[in-house]
Amino acid sequence: MAILRSTLALLGWLAVSFAAGVIGSQFRPDAWYESLVKPLWNPPNAIFAPLWTLLYALMGVAAWLVWRGAGFKGAGVALVLFGVQLVLNTLWSFLFFGLHRIDLAFFEILVLWALILIVGVLFWRENRLAGALMFPYLAWVGFASVLNFMLWQLNKGLLS
Amino acid sequence: MAILRSTLALLGWLAVSFAAGVIGSQFRPDAWYESLVKPLWNPPNAIFAPLWTLLYALMGVAAWLVWRGAGFKGAGVALVLFGVQLVLNTLWSFLFFGLHRIDLAFFEILVLWALILIVGVLFWRENRLAGALMFPYLAWVGFASVLNFMLWQLNKGLLS
Repeated sequence: MAILRSTLALLGWLAVSFAAGVIGSQFRPDAWYESLVKPLWNPPNAIFAPLWTLLYALMGVAAWLVWRGAGFKGAGVALVLFGVQLVLNTLWSFLFFGLHRIDLAFFEILVLWALILIVGVLFWRENRLAGALMFPYLAWVGFASVLNFMLWQLNKGLLS
Repeated sequence: MAILRSTLALLGWLAVSFAAGVIGSQFRPDAWYESLVKPLWNPPNAIFAPLWTLLYALMGVAAWLVWRGAGFKGAGVALVLFGVQLVLNTLWSFLFFGLHRIDLAFFEILVLWALILIVGVLFWRENRLAGALMFPYLAWVGFASVLNFMLWQLNKGLLS
């Protein structure tokens, strides 16, 4: 039964992570986004969906490893903060693509990045591999923060 | 470095699995599919993408667990067959949605189902959890086989 429980738990953690992605993807690149002045190194739209799918899968596996090792009792803070960062992750898409508030989105993504770092460290303490699995996500959100800042600076005229 | 290697390997196994999904998703429900006579229990189109994303993630984790435990040397046959079933998985989408050959797709999915069963058993022998993670996929493809058969029988007039 431990195997069944573990399998269902992985399914659950992956489902929670992907759910954040599915909700966030309701707010997607639109005509407004296309009209923004972008830095030359702005990634093509096509890479976001596969990249985020991988990142959500990695973070889902990370949370599952921590849950398997320590449970909610042993790693409650880390797992709750993991859930909070998922909410912030979705919120960013809403602020940026939904409200077109590049400025708010930038401040929010800094909070998100810091929280991912904290979750990564807490995960690392429980399980080295789980911490490592958060790293690509942390790196990408770091890159996205810089991109968000550039888009804000290059398109200040659009915010009134 | 074992952690880095393990993290990159999970990324790799997930990428391989999702790649099969991305290629297969080039062949998707079209006007022809909408026109088919369907059984009442035919699932709504909206569930396929999230469900398959989960199944690809689970099988990617399963292959990674087997690879971590036994490597290509210890579990070469299982891992190669895992790759073969991914190809057959993609091929089904091509036969069904690409060529509209419901009959060929049905025979192919039977082979796919049998191969998933074999891979699941081989994975189970290496790592109980990895075997269990293949089970939702096996169950879904079993269901899809029955659905494929029904669609074939209900729409024989379309095949000439």
